[in-house]
Amino acid sequence: MYNLKIYAGGHFITSPSIHEIKNPFNNEIIGKTYLARYEQLDDAIEKALKVATELKKLPSYVKYKILKEIAVELQQNREDMARLICLESAKPMRYSLGEVDRAIQTFTIAAEESKRLPREYIDLDWTEAGKDKEGLIKYFPIGLVAGISPFNFPLNLAVHKIAPAIAAGCPIILKPSSSTPLSTLNLAQIIDKTELPKGAVSIIPMDRETGNHLVTDERIKLLSFTGSDVVGWKMKKEAGVKKVILELGGNAGVIVAATSNIDEAVKRCVVGGYAYSGQVCIHAQRIYVQEKVFKEFLDKFIAKVKNLKVGDPLDPETDISAMIDEDNAIRVEQWVNESVEGGAKILAGGARKGSYYPPTVLSQTHNEMKVCALEVFGPVVTLEPYQSLEDALNHINTSKYGLQAGIFTNDINEIDQAFASLDVGGLILNDVPTFRVDHMPYGGVKNSGLGREGVKYSILDMLEAKILVKNKK
Amino acid sequence: MYNLKIYAGGHFITSPSIHEIKNPFNNEIIGKTYLARYEQLDDAIEKALKVATELKKLPSYVKYKILKEIAVELQQNREDMARLICLESAKPMRYSLGEVDRAIQTFTIAAEESKRLPREYIDLDWTEAGKDKEGLIKYFPIGLVAGISPFNFPLNLAVHKIAPAIAAGCPIILKPSSSTPLSTLNLAQIIDKTELPKGAVSIIPMDRETGNHLVTDERIKLLSFTGSDVVGWKMKKEAGVKKVILELGGNAGVIVAATSNIDEAVKRCVVGGYAYSGQVCIHAQRIYVQEKVFKEFLDKFIAKVKNLKVGDPLDPETDISAMIDEDNAIRVEQWVNESVEGGAKILAGGARKGSYYPPTVLSQTHNEMKVCALEVFGPVVTLEPYQSLEDALNHINTSKYGLQAGIFTNDINEIDQAFASLDVGGLILNDVPTFRVDHMPYGGVKNSGLGREGVKYSILDMLEAKILVKNKK
Amino acid sequence: MYNLKIYAGGHFITSPSIHEIKNPFNNEIIGKTYLARYEQLDDAIEKALKVATELKKLPSYVKYKILKEIAVELQQNREDMARLICLESAKPMRYSLGEVDRAIQTFTIAAEESKRLPREYIDLDWTEAGKDKEGLIKYFPIGLVAGISPFNFPLNLAVHKIAPAIAAGCPIILKPSSSTPLSTLNLAQIIDKTELPKGAVSIIPMDRETGNHLVTDERIKLLSFTGSDVVGWKMKKEAGVKKVILELGGNAGVIVAATSNIDEAVKRCVVGGYAYSGQVCIHAQRIYVQEKVFKEFLDKFIAKVKNLKVGDPLDPETDISAMIDEDNAIRVEQWVNESVEGGAKILAGGARKGSYYPPTVLSQTHNEMKVCALEVFGPVVTLEPYQSLEDALNHINTSKYGLQAGIFTNDINEIDQAFASLDVGGLILNDVPTFRVDHMPYGGVKNSGLGREGVKYSILDMLEAKILVKNKK
Amino acid sequence: MYNLKIYAGGHFITSPSIHEIKNPFNNEIIGKTYLARYEQLDDAIEKALKVATELKKLPSYVKYKILKEIAVELQQNREDMARLICLESAKPMRYSLGEVDRAIQTFTIAAEESKRLPREYIDLDWTEAGKDKEGLIKYFPIGLVAGISPFNFPLNLAVHKIAPAIAAGCPIILKPSSSTPLSTLNLAQIIDKTELPKGAVSIIPMDRETGNHLVTDERIKLLSFTGSDVVGWKMKKEAGVKKVILELGGNAGVIVAATSNIDEAVKRCVVGGYAYSGQVCIHAQRIYVQEKVFKEFLDKFIAKVKNLKVGDPLDPETDISAMIDEDNAIRVEQWVNESVEGGAKILAGGARKGSYYPPTVLSQTHNEMKVCALEVFGPVVTLEPYQSLEDALNHINTSKYGLQAGIFTNDINEIDQAFASLDVGGLILNDVPTFRVDHMPYGGVKNSGLGREGVKYSILDMLEAKILVKNKK
Repeated sequence: MYNLKIYAGGHFITSPSIHEIKNPFNNEIIGKTYLARYEQLDDAIEKALKVATELKKLPSYVKYKILKEIAVELQQNREDMARLICLESAKPMRYSLGEVDRAIQTFTIAAEESKRLPREYIDLDWTEAGKDKEGLIKYFPIGLVAGISPFNFPLNLAVHKIAPAIAAGCPIILKPSSSTPLSTLNLAQIIDKTELPKGAVSIIPMDRETGNHLVTDERIKLLSFTGSDVVGWKMKKEAGVKKVILELGGNAGVIVAATSNIDEAVKRCVVGGYAYSGQVCIHAQRIYVQEKVFKEFLDKFIAKVKNLKVGDPLDPETDISAMIDEDNAIRVEQWVNESVEGGAKILAGGARKGSYYPPTVLSQTHNEMKVCALEVFGPVVTLEPYQSLEDALNHINTSKYGLQAGIFTNDINEIDQAFASLDVGGLILNDVPTFRVDHMPYGGVKNSGLGREGVKYSILDMLEAKILVKNKK
Repeated sequence: MYNLKIYAGGHFITSPSIHEIKNPFNNEIIGKTYLARYEQLDDAIEKALKVATELKKLPSYVKYKILKEIAVELQQNREDMARLICLESAKPMRYSLGEVDRAIQTFTIAAEESKRLPREYIDLDWTEAGKDKEGLIKYFPIGLVAGISPFNFPLNLAVHKIAPAIAAGCPIILKPSSSTPLSTLNLAQIIDKTELPKGAVSIIPMDRETGNHLVTDERIKLLSFTGSDVVGWKMKKEAGVKKVILELGGNAGVIVAATSNIDEAVKRCVVGGYAYSGQVCIHAQRIYVQEKVFKEFLDKFIAKVKNLKVGDPLDPETDISAMIDEDNAIRVEQWVNESVEGGAKILAGGARKGSYYPPTVLSQTHNEMKVCALEVFGPVVTLEPYQSLEDALNHINTSKYGLQAGIFTNDINEIDQAFASLDVGGLILNDVPTFRVDHMPYGGVKNSGLGREGVKYSILDMLEAKILVKNKK
Repeated sequence: MYNLKIYAGGHFITSPSIHEIKNPFNNEIIGKTYLARYEQLDDAIEKALKVATELKKLPSYVKYKILKEIAVELQQNREDMARLICLESAKPMRYSLGEVDRAIQTFTIAAEESKRLPREYIDLDWTEAGKDKEGLIKYFPIGLVAGISPFNFPLNLAVHKIAPAIAAGCPIILKPSSSTPLSTLNLAQIIDKTELPKGAVSIIPMDRETGNHLVTDERIKLLSFTGSDVVGWKMKKEAGVKKVILELGGNAGVIVAATSNIDEAVKRCVVGGYAYSGQVCIHAQRIYVQEKVFKEFLDKFIAKVKNLKVGDPLDPETDISAMIDEDNAIRVEQWVNESVEGGAKILAGGARKGSYYPPTVLSQTHNEMKVCALEVFGPVVTLEPYQSLEDALNHINTSKYGLQAGIFTNDINEIDQAFASLDVGGLILNDVPTFRVDHMPYGGVKNSGLGREGVKYSILDMLEAKILVKNKK
Repeated sequence: MYNLKIYAGGHFITSPSIHEIKNPFNNEIIGKTYLARYEQLDDAIEKALKVATELKKLPSYVKYKILKEIAVELQQNREDMARLICLESAKPMRYSLGEVDRAIQTFTIAAEESKRLPREYIDLDWTEAGKDKEGLIKYFPIGLVAGISPFNFPLNLAVHKIAPAIAAGCPIILKPSSSTPLSTLNLAQIIDKTELPKGAVSIIPMDRETGNHLVTDERIKLLSFTGSDVVGWKMKKEAGVKKVILELGGNAGVIVAATSNIDEAVKRCVVGGYAYSGQVCIHAQRIYVQEKVFKEFLDKFIAKVKNLKVGDPLDPETDISAMIDEDNAIRVEQWVNESVEGGAKILAGGARKGSYYPPTVLSQTHNEMKVCALEVFGPVVTLEPYQSLEDALNHINTSKYGLQAGIFTNDINEIDQAFASLDVGGLILNDVPTFRVDHMPYGGVKNSGLGREGVKYSILDMLEAKILVKNKK
């Protein structure tokens, strides 16, 4: 039984509001924490503001040392941390281990980037008005950052806000998902052991009402939110003068061209479609296969999908397990049923058991069906044939989302055409849209978000340019 | 008598709502234009959206050619354009000519930068997950841009939105200030003669209600506003999902240290304090002089201020003329009077005549007085002694604004300290905060704005990153 | 009859050694200039050294203005300058006009880059030893540059040394080819009219013995040579302590894969193979065609080659004309004959008339034959089939040269493989190796050279880094 | 007794030529190694060439892992490695520990930079000729690197060649100094335990004749030499076609202005002047003090110099010990005596004991004396007053060397003037020229060298640009 306290303003504290955490796989209670009261949040904000000047002055080598120490400590607790992720989120162990590895990498990159903050030095004498003048442009911490992170990567998506904040020299208050706060609170203990000034990082579970202060409080200069698009865009409107970064969802499309390696495409699409039951922002939701190879792809894909191993997420062999909660499984069930009523065919899966929803393949869908048009965030994939590449690109662009897409092809013209015309933040060539490494720019266009994460890009968002104009008369 | 039409969707059109423009110096009507109806704006938006794909595909050399042609044409109409600025804004001719020169430079820089849009190419194999993968990051036009520009640099502050939009490949709809729309409408005729696709740039005078659609319309992806802070921050809250760039005002401070060249400092401060009657965002409003040299500075400063030549802005000798309108002159008068009631002393100036307010020097002010705390946007300067540099820095940082500041000193430690601690977007060494050249990053912190202009930086804001992940198995 | 003087140390001077220039097409004398004596060169060197400090201090806007003025002036003399190139080099008019356009572009780019010289600003506190230290890295002119340029692009290859030198702030002494000095001496008159300090650029025809001082003189800090590999590498050994940049020749290969657009490939290969009689460093000398499409390519290629229009270079219709002199035509003839003796077949061309050598196609050659192994620098192309891409790549890599190569294919894997394995400075996809634009990095590996030209890269070579370590205790 | 083998082509081997190493402090033999025969070197070259392709393809994460492992292993052997440096070079223990720390840092930086090799992606459509074309510029390993490193930083100056070579993907053969080969051979054992392909790094003690093959062998593509200027420039002339990087010596000057903090300047100058008996390329050899503070500086400086603790380098308290050998001590003695004969005064030190030469201060010297004009590479400092800054700058620039310089001042104008006019690779503000951190660009102008080290800059020199021109018709 885990019992992990709120980490606020440099202290581990409790509150009267006890918050129990269940294992979604078997609904057993695995631990508890506390939901902070507003006064506790307010106190953390005040401490964060107080420590801001000290953070701004931290030399590179100190920030580097802190960030590396956290990475090393995570490495040494890799199995335990993965097990905790697995328990609180029902993420199969192999993927939970992968997430810890990525969090280690995110801290490592942040350590390296903390030494490479952007600076520019430019000539200003492009006209006579600038004669004898030069400009030094340095980037200073923007101020207090608020981070709000989701349940599906409870550790690494929080780390994508915490590590850049430390590198940039900004204090940060992070609100983890209510379903999965334990792994970040565990991380808090690691952070607390370093020489990072107390109050620089707070990790505070809160109810939604208290959490909303992170959106509206004017002492906060940047809100970085990862979660659903409806919530995200509403936050932007309520955020007042602060800067807002939104990492929202999508309904990523994949194109499989006739010339591609079908076996490889099938293999990758199964991973992209069903890893962590599709509860991934860049889940491969819609697959478009060139009609000449559609039948081949479909047969091989179905065969592999049916072969996925269902079970306890703690079992290292498990491919797929329960969804985060029964409500979500019911929602997915309804969407699938609705699509069937509209004419879609279920080629695999389709029968819910409690919070478990099986890996499901649909075909003969329409773009307006929820399973196509919205973010399904579940183990459901639509599979459709296409004639011309242009058709496939149009299907993908029809979406109100634009996070990532994938294309399997070897033809440079198809690649160029897809890259030029797809309205997405990232196009993955010969792999699924689910691909992400932690230093690449990551984020969406259209309803999928605002701004880019990826350590260097997040750091940039947490900095503010200041120019010193030197006059060398 | 100028008669300049609305430039909307590639056509020069009129509307029933005739809008007359007066010369603020003598209240004579110098010309007219028209205020667009919503349907005309809507039509321009639709045309802009239609032309967006064509713009996105324009080769560098075409964008370069268009932007250079505009620069060349402006050069050939330099005197006429300056005269028009002078007439509609009462900006003295010497400063009007300077503004045209800067607009030429802004287009020139945009031409050059249009060939140098950012691209990155990065290794993704930092972990085994990224083996054989590389990323190409290109930046694509963000979509339709709305620009709203103020009266005080009627040409160049509009050009700082138009030229980057052309370079970035974005269509733009610009709303000029209602007081001074003629110079941009004149520019529209130059733009229209180039091979820029019609509808890419619209310049549309509108009343405030119609103009507010630029803030709320969801087809617009970026709103770039230059103007007052109250209006700007309100727009941000109403802007919905679109990106917002705000270039707002300030109450810039200047520090004159004991070791500096006093004669030079005086000379520059007179320009920074009274150019265009202080109707400049980076007007040198608050001057802090080290107490040892305060008396010397003050005497020399007052002498020079009293020597400024008042008159018709068309006269090439004129240093200072009418303000933009009588309302503003009255407001300045009230603020000065209020400060005097609070204990401030008038050392020069102080007596309004219609829309003319004389160059005024105040001393013995307090930070809370409007002439200190708010943006005076008039020919008023406060002059105060300071003991330690830290005191002077604190005075400047007290402000809710943070656009630019100036410091006159030769001591590297003072420079470092000021640069590290002043909360501003730019610090000008041995010159007034009023210094700006058009390729430097320019913009404020705190209430002074969000984002940076300066051609390259504006272009960056009009672009959206897209990564192509290449898989080289 | 042109009569153009030496431009040395800011003066137009003559010498007793008159040097007459013939039109290679008809051997008529078209003009004269003078070969400088050593004392004249020495004087130019001394003047260049004297002006170096002034050049180093030129503001960006002055360098920009000078370089743009030269570009504008060249534009206004475009036809005359092309005619002069055409007359002294027998380069067909269409290509001569193209060369002038490129020289205009080279000056334009240099103007723009002169404002963007590299500067870096870095944190030095990566360890405690660097605490409170930051580094400003500026790049200063390296000193006196010597340029030696060849006959085949008499204007633009000289400009690729002169324009970067002006942008970098280095004085330069340029020795043009003895066969074709007139166009650069004509350029000298344009340069002399600008406000560039006198002595900054000298253009000095010399005999080989005098010219060798440019290699050995220790007052010169950088030698930039474009010419033959034998001469170039010898110079490097004799250059003492100075930096050396070598742009030498090659025997560029082209690969035409089975999936490529054959008609397009043929069309481009005819241009790459025969433009200016193959007297181009990146002449497409060796064409390898996938065996499935070899016959088709060959037939279409021969047909087009036979259709090339031979004639007076001044005729705008002329595709091909005389070589630079009869010696070179004889050399080409001998190489072709030697290959035929070794078993090669002539598929087109092959019969010399004076200094004219017809467009010639050989097949069934071996890699050791001179027409394959050496730089033919004449209108001769070898055409061979290949089975696997690897074979074709090996053929190209067999060469002791490595300047550029071309590949026609649409397969991303073939592109990746070729780019990874070809030992060249540039690989042109779906075009001939003959492609070059003036801002791209250009230069060879192996025997083809040392360093890269392309305006920005040349400027970089003419600069020397200096770091200012700031200590901000 | 150390017994360390040659590390050649991935094997630890011996040769008949045993080479004993003495402790310069007491002439006791501390260990032995072997001098390689030419056949052994030749074999290592062949193995290096064979492994080059494999190295070129190493993913970033593998290079990173290797380089980090070496850093970690060095950290774990920090004391032992420092002791070995101390024993073979008589470098006092505190400085030996510092050297190991720097070598750890050099490997750490190289690990990080191996993931950040330069790539550019540029638009080529600046003219119509480049329409639809884009360029990807990648940098590939240049080929086999030869490194020759000196005795004075036996570990870190070798590491400055080895670590960048691994990061760049180049095989390297390093010849350590004959006096101090043991620490690098010890490093070889650490390197050998990593997964770096065997043959990628060879560390081979050789006599001078065998070593000269590193200069002349054409299979080697880059020679990176750190050592004396006479040897270095001779090598450049004999190096044939290969690229050459030279890190040579200097006679660094320091300026102490009247406004500077004298106590701090004295403290730093004592370190810069006498650390490791001045056997440092950036030894503070010539100190110029503004005449108003000359007396104060001199008195304080002499006092501190006399206080330096002489003794066994293994003693952690020792400041100064024996020079590398008696020959060098005798040379220094002769130069000092010669200066005294010419009129110089000895203010401290001056009496040699065997290979020990005491910390010595000279004044009233002339620029032509060897102690001023040449690199003294011993514990000798000249101390002279100056009137105007310009005088001091001229003294420093008189030298034929130009590595680094220092200036103590707080006046921004003096800083700007010194930075603009000193002919050096680095100017250290408010510290001695002896300052270096391992990621800053480091190297000299004039006789002091060619090219820059500093990990990123060394890597750049080991890479060769290749452009892929993409044609997107």
